[in-house]
Amino acid sequence: MGRRLSELAELVGGRVEGDPDREVEAIQPLETAGPAHLSLYKDPRFRARALASRAGALLVGASEWEGLEGRNRLVADDPAAAFGRLLRVFHPLALPEPGIHPTAILGTDVEVDPAAHLGPYVVVGDGSRIGPRAVLSAHVVLGRHCTVGEGSVLHPHAVLYDDTELAENVEVHAGVVLGSDGFGYTSSRSGHQKVPQVGRVVIESGVEIGANTTIDRATLGETRIGAGTKIDNLVQVGHNVQVGKANLLCGQAGIAGSARLGDGVVLAGQSGVSGHIELGNGVQVAAKSAALESIAAGQVAGIPAIEIGRWRRQVVRIANLEKLQQRLRELGRRLEAVESQSGKRGDA
Amino acid sequence: MGRRLSELAELVGGRVEGDPDREVEAIQPLETAGPAHLSLYKDPRFRARALASRAGALLVGASEWEGLEGRNRLVADDPAAAFGRLLRVFHPLALPEPGIHPTAILGTDVEVDPAAHLGPYVVVGDGSRIGPRAVLSAHVVLGRHCTVGEGSVLHPHAVLYDDTELAENVEVHAGVVLGSDGFGYTSSRSGHQKVPQVGRVVIESGVEIGANTTIDRATLGETRIGAGTKIDNLVQVGHNVQVGKANLLCGQAGIAGSARLGDGVVLAGQSGVSGHIELGNGVQVAAKSAALESIAAGQVAGIPAIEIGRWRRQVVRIANLEKLQQRLRELGRRLEAVESQSGKRGDA
Amino acid sequence: MGRRLSELAELVGGRVEGDPDREVEAIQPLETAGPAHLSLYKDPRFRARALASRAGALLVGASEWEGLEGRNRLVADDPAAAFGRLLRVFHPLALPEPGIHPTAILGTDVEVDPAAHLGPYVVVGDGSRIGPRAVLSAHVVLGRHCTVGEGSVLHPHAVLYDDTELAENVEVHAGVVLGSDGFGYTSSRSGHQKVPQVGRVVIESGVEIGANTTIDRATLGETRIGAGTKIDNLVQVGHNVQVGKANLLCGQAGIAGSARLGDGVVLAGQSGVSGHIELGNGVQVAAKSAALESIAAGQVAGIPAIEIGRWRRQVVRIANLEKLQQRLRELGRRLEAVESQSGKRGDA
Repeated sequence: MGRRLSELAELVGGRVEGDPDREVEAIQPLETAGPAHLSLYKDPRFRARALASRAGALLVGASEWEGLEGRNRLVADDPAAAFGRLLRVFHPLALPEPGIHPTAILGTDVEVDPAAHLGPYVVVGDGSRIGPRAVLSAHVVLGRHCTVGEGSVLHPHAVLYDDTELAENVEVHAGVVLGSDGFGYTSSRSGHQKVPQVGRVVIESGVEIGANTTIDRATLGETRIGAGTKIDNLVQVGHNVQVGKANLLCGQAGIAGSARLGDGVVLAGQSGVSGHIELGNGVQVAAKSAALESIAAGQVAGIPAIEIGRWRRQVVRIANLEKLQQRLRELGRRLEAVESQSGKRGDA
Repeated sequence: MGRRLSELAELVGGRVEGDPDREVEAIQPLETAGPAHLSLYKDPRFRARALASRAGALLVGASEWEGLEGRNRLVADDPAAAFGRLLRVFHPLALPEPGIHPTAILGTDVEVDPAAHLGPYVVVGDGSRIGPRAVLSAHVVLGRHCTVGEGSVLHPHAVLYDDTELAENVEVHAGVVLGSDGFGYTSSRSGHQKVPQVGRVVIESGVEIGANTTIDRATLGETRIGAGTKIDNLVQVGHNVQVGKANLLCGQAGIAGSARLGDGVVLAGQSGVSGHIELGNGVQVAAKSAALESIAAGQVAGIPAIEIGRWRRQVVRIANLEKLQQRLRELGRRLEAVESQSGKRGDA
Repeated sequence: MGRRLSELAELVGGRVEGDPDREVEAIQPLETAGPAHLSLYKDPRFRARALASRAGALLVGASEWEGLEGRNRLVADDPAAAFGRLLRVFHPLALPEPGIHPTAILGTDVEVDPAAHLGPYVVVGDGSRIGPRAVLSAHVVLGRHCTVGEGSVLHPHAVLYDDTELAENVEVHAGVVLGSDGFGYTSSRSGHQKVPQVGRVVIESGVEIGANTTIDRATLGETRIGAGTKIDNLVQVGHNVQVGKANLLCGQAGIAGSARLGDGVVLAGQSGVSGHIELGNGVQVAAKSAALESIAAGQVAGIPAIEIGRWRRQVVRIANLEKLQQRLRELGRRLEAVESQSGKRGDA
């Protein structure tokens, strides 16, 4: 099972400093690694851990290894990317065998590619199509007229409502719900009347969706997640939202209905985006912050979210309010002294 | 499949301006509509879209159609409500056929109305009762002694713990958990001891509950959601909470244990309500805000939530703190000038 | 079914004031209790309810029963703890019968203790082990090489990914996902490349995990939840997080990757913890707050979270900003008066 360090270096386009024939049996964190292990060290904050580590070799960048000259090193331009690739070498993806489990229940006019896998207790609605090498794990439920593209993987208990479309190489984690009804009502004195939600959800290629995240179908038309976007756990995406390409939507973020996000947008953990607003390409919303109005570019923070530098200065100014009050009192006393000096008081 | 515009107008109590015989084949958004489509236009913010739209007819209110006089129009007093009703005309609800799927597993003393539908792999615990026209979709799990009222619909993977009661016409989306244990412990040096959660959850008629939302059973007695309340996705409702009628609880909102909400309360997205407090009828908590104390009436925002007008003024004052500091410095300089003028300094 | 008050007192080490032979048939809240019921009264805020209650007996602490001298009382040192124990007396845990439901599907090399219960449609992956008196409710899915310790209970639809380990007496509520992939990518111009998540999740003994909560597997190594920690609904725990013993993580709290929490930490509802930071033993993060930097000890609140007393004073100072502005204007006017008095203006 072991691989020589030089072989690993070649796989990631790196070079070896030290013993190229060092055998690596596994990748391990610095703390638990032993002589047969390779460990990633890329952040100088963890230098003490690297120095103390018993790892047989270190995966480092071009400039992070001062003090570690005596160690075997695999030097890569982008050590984090190399780390990801090497993890896959030691932990190859084990896709399940093609075939349909006898307990899977398929509706009428369902097309399943022979290279797809449908696990135990999968339920697929009428007219759905499952592409080659797609994986529907145990207990996945698809409604009618759903599409699962080539190589897409659905983990246990994922649910797709009718008409949901997944392109190629989409990964949907356990408990995800795609295509549930949007939160749309017209309200009057007699209560809230449901607006039928008759649109759908489209997930473009290469998207990953974290556990128990929910994405609502459009009222009319589509809720769409752009290619290469990555969504963390417990994220809420409202109806008719348009998410661009290569977004990162972190844990527990929420996007209200009809918002539009450009490409490369980042929503940090527990952040929120109001309905009907637009975030331009590359906008980053800080953790716990709420974008309540459209934002063309840049990083924002706070509730409501403002440019992050301004937000940081506001935090400092709020912390300094006590001093400001003291200064004001001091000015008041000095002014009083001047007033009594001049034998006169102002108009207050 | 087409319907004449005059026919649609009659259905919603509206009137036609333009060609009453215009055939409408579908409802579409302004952007994608063509000559055979009807589109809703109610918000003047989207006037440019309406002007550019190729829709064969527009659904409008009494006053929003300036500049659109040449278009076929269906004029309704409440165009949003008319839109909802017409969507249902073009997309009629297709309820599944009555009957119990052969893979459904029923406990003892379960009563299922012959007009109910139980889908594949449904599991129903002892002593539960399923009413007429109720729908339990694939993989729904009911505990013991649950009740599902007439016309209530449970989407795939919904879970009801023992003793949960759903009245009529309740809609429960995929992944919802009703009746899980409340978060109740007594803490001491030896750790946190669980307080058994032996109450239940009652959902009144006409409630809709969004995907992956969780509502905990009461410690003793009931957690109750009032009639006509609408709950969005990923909302958390703690044990013993009492939610009134016709509330709107938006995505990722949370309500801590034993809080009481009146009728017509609105919790905007990602807002929170502390335990053991009361929100009066019609209270609205803004997005990302936290009601930490009881609120009798009105709109609130902020953490802790205060009257929304005050909150908005606070946001402006915080943004103006820099100017305030500058003004203070300026006063200081002028005061110094006066002090040196008078040949004296104050007591500072 | 009834039990004498003296018998109940003995069970919790308390004493009876009033009639020791009073028969108690159930425990009820103060509002709904009748003569055959015992009700907890521990919070003086609810004194009016206690006085109005028809309960045949009250469970009280040593000092909360002024005005209630005429009532039958069970007096306990810790009435809340006694309440929890007595609830279990009247509502004994009814564990399901041991055995494997015929619809359960087990992989190869699965070990199931004969005293375990596997419900309908349970799926267990290759090489997993289920301990004595463990309960896997309907539709629970375990991946490969999972361990469920003695007496652990998994509610319907819980999902464990490969390699997840539950120690003894863990309770996992419906819809929980343990071991899903962490949110790890390396980003470049060509997009976000997934870093394989090949670690696992370990849940120590006595942990309870609320409905639809998600805990991600480690990239390498372990995400670990310490013994006796209690986690509420819809909580997100990122990859490689280390949670200590006896934590309380309240509803919708979130912990970003690689954060470390000591023992006895409390995260209140909807609070958040940034990645890679540490919270010391006993740290308490207030509701809606965000710990963005490491915190050694104490209670914190706000975004970013600061010592809670400071946060409270900041809230007051912000509320007083209007007065501060008024005082500043007043000082300006008085200064102007002094300046004109002295026939001179300052340098402004």
